[in-house]
Amino acid sequence: MTSPETSVADALLVIRRELDTLVDRVLTESAAGAAPNPLEAVADLIASADRVFVVGAGRSGLALRMTAMRLMHLGLDVHVVGEVTTPAITAGDVLLTASGSGTTGAIVRAAETAAGAEARIAVITTVSDSPLAALATAVVVVPAAEKRDRSGAASAQYAGSLFEQIVVLLGDALFHALWKRSGASADDLWPRHANLE
Amino acid sequence: MTSPETSVADALLVIRRELDTLVDRVLTESAAGAAPNPLEAVADLIASADRVFVVGAGRSGLALRMTAMRLMHLGLDVHVVGEVTTPAITAGDVLLTASGSGTTGAIVRAAETAAGAEARIAVITTVSDSPLAALATAVVVVPAAEKRDRSGAASAQYAGSLFEQIVVLLGDALFHALWKRSGASADDLWPRHANLE
Amino acid sequence: MTSPETSVADALLVIRRELDTLVDRVLTESAAGAAPNPLEAVADLIASADRVFVVGAGRSGLALRMTAMRLMHLGLDVHVVGEVTTPAITAGDVLLTASGSGTTGAIVRAAETAAGAEARIAVITTVSDSPLAALATAVVVVPAAEKRDRSGAASAQYAGSLFEQIVVLLGDALFHALWKRSGASADDLWPRHANLE
Amino acid sequence: MTSPETSVADALLVIRRELDTLVDRVLTESAAGAAPNPLEAVADLIASADRVFVVGAGRSGLALRMTAMRLMHLGLDVHVVGEVTTPAITAGDVLLTASGSGTTGAIVRAAETAAGAEARIAVITTVSDSPLAALATAVVVVPAAEKRDRSGAASAQYAGSLFEQIVVLLGDALFHALWKRSGASADDLWPRHANLE
Repeated sequence: MTSPETSVADALLVIRRELDTLVDRVLTESAAGAAPNPLEAVADLIASADRVFVVGAGRSGLALRMTAMRLMHLGLDVHVVGEVTTPAITAGDVLLTASGSGTTGAIVRAAETAAGAEARIAVITTVSDSPLAALATAVVVVPAAEKRDRSGAASAQYAGSLFEQIVVLLGDALFHALWKRSGASADDLWPRHANLE
Repeated sequence: MTSPETSVADALLVIRRELDTLVDRVLTESAAGAAPNPLEAVADLIASADRVFVVGAGRSGLALRMTAMRLMHLGLDVHVVGEVTTPAITAGDVLLTASGSGTTGAIVRAAETAAGAEARIAVITTVSDSPLAALATAVVVVPAAEKRDRSGAASAQYAGSLFEQIVVLLGDALFHALWKRSGASADDLWPRHANLE
Repeated sequence: MTSPETSVADALLVIRRELDTLVDRVLTESAAGAAPNPLEAVADLIASADRVFVVGAGRSGLALRMTAMRLMHLGLDVHVVGEVTTPAITAGDVLLTASGSGTTGAIVRAAETAAGAEARIAVITTVSDSPLAALATAVVVVPAAEKRDRSGAASAQYAGSLFEQIVVLLGDALFHALWKRSGASADDLWPRHANLE
Repeated sequence: MTSPETSVADALLVIRRELDTLVDRVLTESAAGAAPNPLEAVADLIASADRVFVVGAGRSGLALRMTAMRLMHLGLDVHVVGEVTTPAITAGDVLLTASGSGTTGAIVRAAETAAGAEARIAVITTVSDSPLAALATAVVVVPAAEKRDRSGAASAQYAGSLFEQIVVLLGDALFHALWKRSGASADDLWPRHANLE
C-alpha cells in the first residue's frame, strides 16, 4: 500500500541488501591485500593487548561500545574512552577505533596520543589513506559511504548508517572469532555479565 | 589455515547468514498477524509522539541509543532514559524499548511506569507473550535467541548478539521509513548533527 | 538590587552556610556511635576491596562518579554500575552507594544483589533505619534533607541538593584520606589520568 | 589515633576550610570587577537562552551534569555535549562550561565552535586570561588550584578537586537563584523529575 521505503519492511530489505553486498566487499578487500588479512590482524592485536581501549564518535562510538561489552565478557581488560574510570593508555595497550572518513578530529587526536604512548592502533574506516589509517597498526577498509557523503551514491541510507551497521557486525565478528579461539563455552562467559543494573 | 569461525572472516559470514534469515522471519511474522503490521504500527507510534523515550539494558540499550540519535536528526524530541537531562514521561509520549526475554526487570518497570503515566509503548522482543509485550501498544516479535539462551540452538552467536544486531537494523529501518515519509532531504537533516564533540 | 537568594551570590552563601553546618553534624554523628567511626569504616572497606563498584541515581550517581574517578587515579580497580565495561560484582568487592531516602528502588535492588553475591556494601544516606542501610556493612548517616522532602525545613535548597553536595565532599574526603594513607605523591597519581579525551 | 588527613574526618575539615575560603574569594572577586557581577551575568545568560548546552572534561564535566539536571527540573531546554540526543548548537543558545586551566583542548574547541555558531558562552575557570575566557560572554574567575597544579600551594587537595567542588556549588547557586527568580515552588518543579530509571 505504501510506496517503497516509506514502509519499515521495505526499508529493512534495503538495509539487508546493502549489508549483504558490503560484507562481500569487506571480505574481498581484506583478502586481496598483503598478508596478514587485516580482519585477522585486528583480532590478533586485541588478543595480544594488555588492555583494550575503544573510541568512536556518535553512532560509531555506540557500535564500539557494543564490542567493548563483549570483550569484557570474554575476560579482557577493556575501557571506553570518556568513561570516568578509564585510565591513561600506555605501551602494551591497543586502541580500537572507527571513523568513516578517518578524519574525525577527536578520533585522530586520540590515535595520535595513543601512538605517542606507544600503544598499537586498530582502525575501521572507509578511507585507506586517511590520517587515522596512517596511524594504524592494522586497518580494516570498509567500502561504505562515510557520514559526510550525502549523495546517496554509495548507499540509499542516511549519512554513515551503513558504515555504522558494519562496525556493529565487525565488532561482533571479532568477538565471535576470539571467543571460538579461546575454547571457552557460553556458560564460561556468562558469570562476567553485569549483575547490577 | 584457521578452522571455521576462529577466523573473523568466517564469523562475519555466520553473522550475515543468521541476519539474512532473521530479517525474512521478522518480515513474515510481521505480515502474518492482524493488521496493522507491527513494524508500521511502531513507526506510526513514533511519528505521532509528542516525545520519544528510549530504554534498553546493556547492548540492546546501546542499539536503541543509535536509533535515538537518528530520531533526533529527524527533528523529533528524543530522550534516553538514564541521561541527566531526561524529564518525566507523560501522556502523549512514546516509550520505545527492546528486551530479548521481555522480562528484564528494569525495562518492565519502566514500561509499567510509562503505562501508568498513559504513555504509549513500543516493544521489540523475542517473546510475544512476555510481561513487557503485555504492556505494549505495538510489539515487533523477533524470532531470535534471547540473551539467556546459551544453547546455541537459535543462533551460533553468543547470548543475545543476534537479537541486538536486529535491534540496530530495525531501529535504522524505522528511521529510514520515517525519513522517507517526511520528504526531507539528507541536507535538510544535516544541520541537526551535533557540532560540539 | 535583587532580593535575597535571587542573586547567585546570596544563593552561594546559603549553600556554604548549610554545608558548614552539615559537615559539623556529620562529624558529630559519626563520632557519637559505637566504634569504628563509620567514616573511617567506609575508607577501610574501600582500601581492602578487590574492586570497588559505585552506584547512585541521578545527581547522587554523578557525585559518586566523581569519587570513582579519583579512586581510579589512586590505582584502585573501580567500576561504575551501568557503564558498558562493568562486570559482575562478587565476593571480595565493595559496593559504594548513596541514597538520601535509602529507599531508591534501583539502588536497594543493587545492594540486595551485591549482598547476595557476598560483596560488602558502604552506604551514605539520611535515614539510618532505611532498607538500604539495613544491607550495609558501613553506613554514614548524613542529617540532610532527602530528595523527596520538599518542605524546606531541613534545607532552603531544592530537593536533595544539600545531600548531593555532601556526597561530593564525602567522596573527596574518602579519597583524600586514602591518598594520604598511601604515601603516594600527587606526581605518583598523575600518570593514571586519562590521556585520551 | 590517626595522623591528620589520614582520617576521613580530618580530610573533611580540610575540604570545608578550603571551600569556605574559596567562596569568600569568589564573591570578592566577582564583586570587584566592572558591572555586571559575573555571577549574575551567567545567571542572566542562562535565563535568556533558547537552549543551554553544558560541556566539561572529567570531574568538571560531572559537576556540570549535576547543574544540567537541575536546569532541566527548572523547565529549561538543556543538553549535555556528548550525549546521543544532543543536537547542534546555534545562535540563541548558551554554552556553559568549566575548565580550571581554561586551556583544555576539547573545551576550547567546543567554545570556538559555539562562538562560530554565534552562541553565547559562560565560563568558570581559574585563569582570567585563558583562551577559554577569551571566548566567553561571561566569566566567573575562581581563585582555586587548577588540575595540573600539583604543588599543593593553592590547595592541600589533589589536583583540581577544590575547583571541581566549587563548580558543583556554583552550579547549584545558579540554579537556586534562577529558581527563586522564577517564583515556582518545589512542588511545581517536582513533576519534571525523571520517572523512568
